[in-house]
Amino acid sequence: MQIDLSKIKSPSDIKEMSIDQLELLSGELRAALIKKLAVHGGHVGPNLGVVEATVALHYVFNAPTDEIVFDVSHQSYVHKMLTGRIGAFIDPARYDEVTGYTSPDESKYDLFEVGHTSTSISLATGLAKARDLQGGKQNVIAFIGDASLGGGMALEALNYAPCLGSNFILVLNDNQMSIAENHGELYAHLKELRDTDGQSPNNIFKALGYEYLYVAEGNDLRHLIKAFEEVKDTDKAVVVHLNTMKGKGLPVAEANKEAFHYSGPFNAETGAPEYQGGESYLDIFANTMLSLIEENDKVVLLTAGTPGAMGFDKPRRERAGKQFIDVGIAEQDGVTMTAGMAKGGLRPVMGVVSTFLQRAYDQLSHDIAVNNLPSVIVDFYCGVYGMNDVTHLGLFDVAMVSNIPNIKMFSATNAEEYEAMIRMGVAQTESPVVVRTPGGRLLHSDRKVDTDFYRYEILREGKDFAIIGEGAMLQNALQAADILKEKGVEVTVINPRIISEVDKEALDRLRDYKRVVTIDDGIVDGGFGQKVAAYLGDKGPKVTCLGLQKEFMDKYDAKSVLRDNGMLPEQIAALIHE
Amino acid sequence: MQIDLSKIKSPSDIKEMSIDQLELLSGELRAALIKKLAVHGGHVGPNLGVVEATVALHYVFNAPTDEIVFDVSHQSYVHKMLTGRIGAFIDPARYDEVTGYTSPDESKYDLFEVGHTSTSISLATGLAKARDLQGGKQNVIAFIGDASLGGGMALEALNYAPCLGSNFILVLNDNQMSIAENHGELYAHLKELRDTDGQSPNNIFKALGYEYLYVAEGNDLRHLIKAFEEVKDTDKAVVVHLNTMKGKGLPVAEANKEAFHYSGPFNAETGAPEYQGGESYLDIFANTMLSLIEENDKVVLLTAGTPGAMGFDKPRRERAGKQFIDVGIAEQDGVTMTAGMAKGGLRPVMGVVSTFLQRAYDQLSHDIAVNNLPSVIVDFYCGVYGMNDVTHLGLFDVAMVSNIPNIKMFSATNAEEYEAMIRMGVAQTESPVVVRTPGGRLLHSDRKVDTDFYRYEILREGKDFAIIGEGAMLQNALQAADILKEKGVEVTVINPRIISEVDKEALDRLRDYKRVVTIDDGIVDGGFGQKVAAYLGDKGPKVTCLGLQKEFMDKYDAKSVLRDNGMLPEQIAALIHE
Repeated sequence: MQIDLSKIKSPSDIKEMSIDQLELLSGELRAALIKKLAVHGGHVGPNLGVVEATVALHYVFNAPTDEIVFDVSHQSYVHKMLTGRIGAFIDPARYDEVTGYTSPDESKYDLFEVGHTSTSISLATGLAKARDLQGGKQNVIAFIGDASLGGGMALEALNYAPCLGSNFILVLNDNQMSIAENHGELYAHLKELRDTDGQSPNNIFKALGYEYLYVAEGNDLRHLIKAFEEVKDTDKAVVVHLNTMKGKGLPVAEANKEAFHYSGPFNAETGAPEYQGGESYLDIFANTMLSLIEENDKVVLLTAGTPGAMGFDKPRRERAGKQFIDVGIAEQDGVTMTAGMAKGGLRPVMGVVSTFLQRAYDQLSHDIAVNNLPSVIVDFYCGVYGMNDVTHLGLFDVAMVSNIPNIKMFSATNAEEYEAMIRMGVAQTESPVVVRTPGGRLLHSDRKVDTDFYRYEILREGKDFAIIGEGAMLQNALQAADILKEKGVEVTVINPRIISEVDKEALDRLRDYKRVVTIDDGIVDGGFGQKVAAYLGDKGPKVTCLGLQKEFMDKYDAKSVLRDNGMLPEQIAALIHE
Repeated sequence: MQIDLSKIKSPSDIKEMSIDQLELLSGELRAALIKKLAVHGGHVGPNLGVVEATVALHYVFNAPTDEIVFDVSHQSYVHKMLTGRIGAFIDPARYDEVTGYTSPDESKYDLFEVGHTSTSISLATGLAKARDLQGGKQNVIAFIGDASLGGGMALEALNYAPCLGSNFILVLNDNQMSIAENHGELYAHLKELRDTDGQSPNNIFKALGYEYLYVAEGNDLRHLIKAFEEVKDTDKAVVVHLNTMKGKGLPVAEANKEAFHYSGPFNAETGAPEYQGGESYLDIFANTMLSLIEENDKVVLLTAGTPGAMGFDKPRRERAGKQFIDVGIAEQDGVTMTAGMAKGGLRPVMGVVSTFLQRAYDQLSHDIAVNNLPSVIVDFYCGVYGMNDVTHLGLFDVAMVSNIPNIKMFSATNAEEYEAMIRMGVAQTESPVVVRTPGGRLLHSDRKVDTDFYRYEILREGKDFAIIGEGAMLQNALQAADILKEKGVEVTVINPRIISEVDKEALDRLRDYKRVVTIDDGIVDGGFGQKVAAYLGDKGPKVTCLGLQKEFMDKYDAKSVLRDNGMLPEQIAALIHE
């Protein structure tokens, strides 16, 4: 007996299956997933862990009438396979047809674009409130887990959802893991619940007013279906706590949960990655931090659940010892704990992916900046060469951070400058400092780093025209200057370095220029270029602000985007030579 | 026997007192507080509730060696009285010498500027980590309560703090209240703990790894001192749960906890406010929302714990019924629940104080804006006439919100326009909309509102010079134009209305002007003026961007600030007539 996966067009195609058939189906879905992921890469462990839970969900509930909200939504691959998108998982030519997250543009079964953690309960309470006011009867289900329950927003909503007093089903996928280890006592409590088969009298969910159901065999269809049938159409708030295995069915992923949370293409037998990247800015960061930690016992490196995203692997974490902290996926706590450490006399550095820094705006402003606490935030995956999922763009950090008073924001353009900026940030005690990691491939400088980062650096002296390119866009500025030079036009090229304020002295030297072109590696709005335009607005030169449109793009091609926004070197040269 | 309060210079002055003396002291502190607050206004209920707890804290612990972090810090008045600032509470001439929050500029006993909720546990874990790495032995105490425990960041940190494995004392001031009622099941759980005298087997703090101590008589010095002595110098994470009475000792405040959370000057006998304000923009908002709710059963108004700050009083809340939601002080949950409600087909409006909207940047961006969900956020206490505590400034919202893609941000200039903008936001289904409430006194318009808010409104047609004034700054533009008119110079005056993008057509009509002046009612950086400067940068006119410096000011005088930044009408006129 075999299931023809290509025939699975919608959840209705599995409703008539026997449990035995569903088990067969689950096995085939898992095999197809492993085959695709080994070639294509993706979130391996999270999806392998929830094959059965997703099959059971769609078997018991009636999506899209019943509304399922996937937290983070990086574990929605099986959901996609069951909701009309199987082709993108069984036909290698079509692997790129789906994104790695839920997307309403792809399917009516996907309710939201989601890529950040801890949002599902709030989104689902909104849906439940809409249902209740409009007299609906559908089930509303938030599917959370893989450490996103520890995020503050999830906890806020966990606290509020039972107040609705109506159907609300929280499926907690407890795979005992975060991206790295789980951090926070909540996870110790979940272990207590697992160890007592859900019977511990101490139960945070019951304390918060939920009915509670524990499924010890969270990869067993029979148990899952029984539990979901039990809670279907409830008129209360219920938690269904599933004990699942991350990476289930792929031995290398079961054994190595952190590495296989997300992986590029890999050998399914050995787990070895298919490609080995060269040295990256993350290596520069990780090595710099390890040196700083070993040089100075007051230096502490903090991450909010993503040490791997900053290259700080397990051996480095072990060497850093108590000078390394992982607070779990809790960016707010991480940033404000950084403020507390600075006040207490430490020299804290927090590493954070650009898009996730968004989750701690108020902590940056109210805790670090108002208190002007010397601390360093290093921001990864920035700019046009950063992540390109619509929920993970690195295009907005300058607009967000650089307009907060007291914070000095710096943008690096090569490895040596990057290291020097981090070291400067740690050494100084005047201000909070944010360092933007360059996008694009690693560049080295053969010149001594000029460490007066509060001033613009003039790389070439020309006349009449100047190009100021921030971060990775400095290369575009330099290449445009090369093109112009061939045409006999010598232009000034500036690496601004500091992007939270303008270097007035440097700009005053451009007063009699004809045109100044700024290039933001991110959106123009709220960026450094607009500061330059405002400063020069009542002086001589015309100013043209290049950078990206203020829009959310998905799965974009960097070169096309640069071209669409007139940011390619030849376009910049033409603008000046027009 | 009497205590001479003026002799209390530091906590050491109370260390030798007997319990009877401390009780006498508490009574006198409370009487002085009531006397000052009735004349001066301030956070009445929160401070009256913690007189004894604060005395006991300073009696048992040794600040500033022992480090006390006050959450929100609006309940730190008694702490200020005991730490060298008694004069500001007993001498009416000196009432203004202290701010309403902790402030390191005022005293070494104050560790942080704090005004937003839910930060204390994270700050204190940072201090504890700094202590542990540097071999210190002091106690670290986070003093939280008055509903701030339900904020996501507090919950993140609550989850993490026991991981430190060292001394960490969390004093939970449970006064059974938020600013309005408490919302969220956590508060039902606290009631369960109170009702069982702390003995319930279900205990969220124990679940998270804390030792736990319950003090039923949280306004009784003997019980408080005993509890604090018991936990002093602990090497674990401990929660001391105090059952206190908000407003204790002032009958009108005990009876009317919401009104006396914060109050202007009042009659201490009757509780009647000394001044009755006239109609305000909050009335316009509240009345508009009540009308919309009564007109359309899909309209829902949501607040994150501050219904009073948007004029939505109890009678209005009762009339709104299920179409009003208070999620408690949980802005992240509130914004993302708004996204969920919009997806579910409702027409949600969230009202939020400008400075607190900062707490939900990612929710605005990732949940509302990426998903482009039609919903309305109305932003209060904005601009130079907004709140003027350093932690509550309304000067940064435009830079924060208007640079997020998809969000349309509008700034109103009078009551009729404001109401029309809110109604437009609710009626349209294209975009998320943020409406900025005007600062300053209520203005009415005698003209019909032009509701094409996506376009600039030309109020006066002149030539060569244009002034574009946003929000309350439109008045400065109009008054500058009056001054110039007297000198024979007719200038164009524009009310931009939309501030998240420029009206290119309107600006193109200014191509041949000599100078365009923009006035942001907030900081220049990241504001609408810089967008105008960037757009006109390679066209004809010089552009001058007026607005506030990017800095944190405290207790500022609006007129002085406007003068310092060249924003007064006569200064603007002089700039143009120079």
